[in-house]
Amino acid sequence: MQRLTPKGRISQTQIRVRYAETDAMGIVHHSRYIPWFELGRSDWMREAGLPYSVFEKTGYYLTVTEVQARYYHPAVYDELVTIYTWIEEVKSRGITIGYEVRNEAGQRLVQGITKHVCITHAGKPVRLPPELLAMFRAGIQQDEDLPKTSN
Amino acid sequence: MQRLTPKGRISQTQIRVRYAETDAMGIVHHSRYIPWFELGRSDWMREAGLPYSVFEKTGYYLTVTEVQARYYHPAVYDELVTIYTWIEEVKSRGITIGYEVRNEAGQRLVQGITKHVCITHAGKPVRLPPELLAMFRAGIQQDEDLPKTSN
Amino acid sequence: MQRLTPKGRISQTQIRVRYAETDAMGIVHHSRYIPWFELGRSDWMREAGLPYSVFEKTGYYLTVTEVQARYYHPAVYDELVTIYTWIEEVKSRGITIGYEVRNEAGQRLVQGITKHVCITHAGKPVRLPPELLAMFRAGIQQDEDLPKTSN
Amino acid sequence: MQRLTPKGRISQTQIRVRYAETDAMGIVHHSRYIPWFELGRSDWMREAGLPYSVFEKTGYYLTVTEVQARYYHPAVYDELVTIYTWIEEVKSRGITIGYEVRNEAGQRLVQGITKHVCITHAGKPVRLPPELLAMFRAGIQQDEDLPKTSN
Repeated sequence: MQRLTPKGRISQTQIRVRYAETDAMGIVHHSRYIPWFELGRSDWMREAGLPYSVFEKTGYYLTVTEVQARYYHPAVYDELVTIYTWIEEVKSRGITIGYEVRNEAGQRLVQGITKHVCITHAGKPVRLPPELLAMFRAGIQQDEDLPKTSN
Repeated sequence: MQRLTPKGRISQTQIRVRYAETDAMGIVHHSRYIPWFELGRSDWMREAGLPYSVFEKTGYYLTVTEVQARYYHPAVYDELVTIYTWIEEVKSRGITIGYEVRNEAGQRLVQGITKHVCITHAGKPVRLPPELLAMFRAGIQQDEDLPKTSN
Repeated sequence: MQRLTPKGRISQTQIRVRYAETDAMGIVHHSRYIPWFELGRSDWMREAGLPYSVFEKTGYYLTVTEVQARYYHPAVYDELVTIYTWIEEVKSRGITIGYEVRNEAGQRLVQGITKHVCITHAGKPVRLPPELLAMFRAGIQQDEDLPKTSN
Repeated sequence: MQRLTPKGRISQTQIRVRYAETDAMGIVHHSRYIPWFELGRSDWMREAGLPYSVFEKTGYYLTVTEVQARYYHPAVYDELVTIYTWIEEVKSRGITIGYEVRNEAGQRLVQGITKHVCITHAGKPVRLPPELLAMFRAGIQQDEDLPKTSN
């Protein structure tokens, strides 16, 4: 997975690492970052004015078709970490969302992407509803600066 | 929580401990036994002839109203553990299920109970459907011997 | 499990429910509240001036010997929930911590307790170190009012 | 992520889907396949004669530097699924492991890879110990046929 450069509107989600998220290596288990990405895109959509919980009730899911994560530095129990979330790519049939997780010292811990398509609650793939497409396109165009990492 | 004595028909579910189930103490995180209990009651019902997945499709849930667990000895990564599951108590409005988890050496790791009531998919509490009640009552009466623990 | 009445100093931890914490019933899986309790006691200790992450480095663990939870009302995806945490009982060899989780409407979702003893990193049970004992005792004596629930 | 073709020695791990692994979409949450991959590589190593739990005690970790997963079809509660695991690539400084998850009907549900490097318990990156390197190289050369998927 290539190094990503965050772009467009970037949302920030701050969480404290739970003991239950660590493993016997004494660090956060690699699978635990995936729900953090999900938290990040929940916040991104809420800030864009369309919470996923509201969107879902319109009869659709934005289902995950692919996930990738690259691990740079481990997170540990009780740290405050920040999930930066942005729209990486928008197509009429699907989107790619980008993520970077940093610790309080500003170190890059993890980068990742998730790919999504829109399906009905019955599981039928459909094009992204226009309001969703417009929201993601606006998000990718909007410019924002992400602070430099310390590593 | 009092020491439980398994009774009636006792199902056995064997699983291998996942690395993702450990925490920074190097042992299985205490919350991880709760899904193991659920695995245990899934197998108990399957062996009784009514898999929960089939029961659920009849329009009901057997929802959890209470959970208790008492930790005796930790499980560690890659161990084979066995979940023993039995019916602890049956009432027309709800049941209590009992669990004991042991390691390969036969040591008691955890005991627990879960309490359940029956609700419709719309969330309305109802009495246990007759076939479910009969199944649980039969299970509590049937006699079975659990091997002694090594501790 | 009896209804608990929160007492002493009560910490508050607010979190947003993750999609990954829900299950096929459309609500938060019952096992997922147990890590929330852990988050709650992490915050209680931090507010008392001794973060668990710092305590752990002194060579001890406050290991969980028992957990109980009583479920009143389900939490759902994207809700803001608050975990109220207090010290339920303090003895020289162990403590009991109490928890209540509420939604934004102030409804009681779950109550629970965890019981803990102190062990060395090698697993040897010991009495609670004096500074820990003093901290928990001070917490139980301090008076605080918890707002009424809406149910 | 490109479609993978399993090769070399392929281990098979069969598990039953847990209710706790589902989410509010009624299917297995996408993050839950990552611990299944881990189960798969645990079994692969055990079958190769060097269980990871034994390897870890020699002072090393095979830490995850990258994970990728491509979702084809959802798994649901109570299904028996099989995780096929193989070695995708071996280098002196790291390896790539491949995975495919199928349901009982033989449908491909998910494919994925994880990348690993070897570190000491103090976190220092090192080359793969010779016995590990030899084991992975032998695994990639050994030929095995994976049954065709039904999709």
